[in-house]
Amino acid sequence: MSRSINLAVIPGDGIGQEVVAEGLKVLSAVLPQDVKLETKEYDFGAKRYHATGETLTDADLAALKQHDAILLGAIGDPSVPSGVLERGFLLKLRFAFDHHVNLRPSKLLPGVATPLAGQPEIDFVVVREGTEGPYTGNGGTIRTGTEHEVATEVSVNTAYGVERVVRDAFARAQARPRKKLTLVHKNNVLTFAGHLWTNIFNQVAKEFPEVTTDYIHVDAATIYLVTDPARFDVIVTDNLFGDIITDLAAAVSGGIGVAASGNINPGRAFPSMFEPVHGSAPDIAGQGKADPTATVLSVALLLRHLGYDGEAERIDTAVAADLTERASLGTRSTSQIGDALASRVAG
Amino acid sequence: MSRSINLAVIPGDGIGQEVVAEGLKVLSAVLPQDVKLETKEYDFGAKRYHATGETLTDADLAALKQHDAILLGAIGDPSVPSGVLERGFLLKLRFAFDHHVNLRPSKLLPGVATPLAGQPEIDFVVVREGTEGPYTGNGGTIRTGTEHEVATEVSVNTAYGVERVVRDAFARAQARPRKKLTLVHKNNVLTFAGHLWTNIFNQVAKEFPEVTTDYIHVDAATIYLVTDPARFDVIVTDNLFGDIITDLAAAVSGGIGVAASGNINPGRAFPSMFEPVHGSAPDIAGQGKADPTATVLSVALLLRHLGYDGEAERIDTAVAADLTERASLGTRSTSQIGDALASRVAG
Ligand SMILES: CC(C)[C@H](C(=O)O)[C@@H](O)C(=O)O
Ligand SMILES: CC(C)[C@H](C(=O)O)[C@@H](O)C(=O)O
Repeated sequence: MSRSINLAVIPGDGIGQEVVAEGLKVLSAVLPQDVKLETKEYDFGAKRYHATGETLTDADLAALKQHDAILLGAIGDPSVPSGVLERGFLLKLRFAFDHHVNLRPSKLLPGVATPLAGQPEIDFVVVREGTEGPYTGNGGTIRTGTEHEVATEVSVNTAYGVERVVRDAFARAQARPRKKLTLVHKNNVLTFAGHLWTNIFNQVAKEFPEVTTDYIHVDAATIYLVTDPARFDVIVTDNLFGDIITDLAAAVSGGIGVAASGNINPGRAFPSMFEPVHGSAPDIAGQGKADPTATVLSVALLLRHLGYDGEAERIDTAVAADLTERASLGTRSTSQIGDALASRVAG
Repeated sequence: MSRSINLAVIPGDGIGQEVVAEGLKVLSAVLPQDVKLETKEYDFGAKRYHATGETLTDADLAALKQHDAILLGAIGDPSVPSGVLERGFLLKLRFAFDHHVNLRPSKLLPGVATPLAGQPEIDFVVVREGTEGPYTGNGGTIRTGTEHEVATEVSVNTAYGVERVVRDAFARAQARPRKKLTLVHKNNVLTFAGHLWTNIFNQVAKEFPEVTTDYIHVDAATIYLVTDPARFDVIVTDNLFGDIITDLAAAVSGGIGVAASGNINPGRAFPSMFEPVHGSAPDIAGQGKADPTATVLSVALLLRHLGYDGEAERIDTAVAADLTERASLGTRSTSQIGDALASRVAG
């Protein structure tokens, strides 16, 4: 294992700056003395877009590629037209670095607030495909802006792309105590892509006889997420369905303030990127109100990806302890939460 | 207004038979003496498919077209491959009869069980587009079944199709006390369709100055549906997003046992179809365990569509009374619930 981490840091917009600062604080605190942490900050986001018109250039990609991993705060601002930074930066990076495993764990800790009655057990991971589906940018418009406009969006699904993410999800399910994997799709309506996903899922299942499998339509999945979230262990799903159900999963398991994600290239051909699921929240930016927990948990995912399992575990434990005590701790600022987590992982 | 109703009845599969019987019971009870109710039953569904290979023929469509409206129980059975009855019957009918307004109200009544803590206020309507989007069946596969398979699904969106459903939703919002309309899409990623929807939404908004509007991404919408459902009054959205969020909406507002829907052709060029949101639930079929409430509420939507507003209102009131007393009524069978509702509306 490498004893140095060369990290690209992208604070981004809104609360991104604040939460990333706390993520780095905790990262520094948890790493052993002999691990050399190098960080380089990049200025992607709304400000750079307004100044230069650039979102992510080839030179940027070449620079980012030199790093072991990327930590991102949040990208997006109301001053930029919808889609420009999402397609021009976030998705461009996921696609350029082949981040085909978009990993989003959900765990409801005791004492943590949830909109669900009865504090159900929630402990599952969504493996969302990250480089295909309706996210490819395929499609277009004709007769644009007229009453005869036709706009299409093409969901592209390949056996290659589906198999690798399904295989990754089976391996993750196999490594968990319950060993259960649920495929979420809409194969009764999106029959072309649905059959591809279902067939590959069933084929790969044969290689993992210990893993219990089932299938649910995405609409029904949203029902189970609020009525019986304990039924889920690992979920594998398409890019768009994954986008939707992971926001819901975050909402029921403590809120997007604590939802972490990894945009992972498992073969490490490119650096993986770790980011909170929440956005840039411009309404509360700069006020020290943002919860850095999701970013700190994203740092844990980053460490685990790089092989620092013990350190990742210490962060998870610190966050769990902090969250369960939170109700009694009163309102804390972004940096106070960061300080508390940093001292827990250091101790 | 016509003083006769010529109704096509499609009990379908599983619990469909049982719940439709109760829907008809309540319909007969609520109609004034001078309204002549004629019903004709059709045998669509799994049994007919197995016997004849047919799902919905041209002759079937011609016969159905003669009716004023259609009442459907549920279609679907595990013995039929996924997609066959959905695409071959349900969606075929929605498309053939141009059911572009898929109406799905959600209302949480006092005392009704919800998975959400704190019994929030929920009273909104989703206007789901019904004839476009990823539901068109456009797409296909190449190199099918090989490791080089590519499967596509094409979401088709037209200015014509979007405008008519958006206009319908604005009119519905205008007619409600809060007069608020929310567009739900994913216009930061699905930019081609997203811009079409957003532009048309903003244009039509100018004609409805009294209606307050906002926009939320579909992923965020799932968060609000569990953390702040009271923020919604009317939602207009795409076919697939509507499918997903209405299942979630049903789950939080009393469960799919009480979720009704109308597949509406507002201009009445074709008969509209009314059906519970739930499926055929083969696991409980034939046991008198199914809740007919969603079907009865679908009958209310049907009556309102045909201009019988007073009768529709009486059904809604009866259901509300039954639901709020339900906790104290113990377990009742499908027909006991139907009887109770029928006697309430008759009284
Ligand atoms: C901002 C947007 C492009 C992104 C997505 O849709 O993937 C976000 O919602 C997420 O889930 O990471
Ligand atoms: C059964 C299926 C085709 C249908 C849909 O996806 O529209 C159902 O989920 C619904 O919501 O009515």
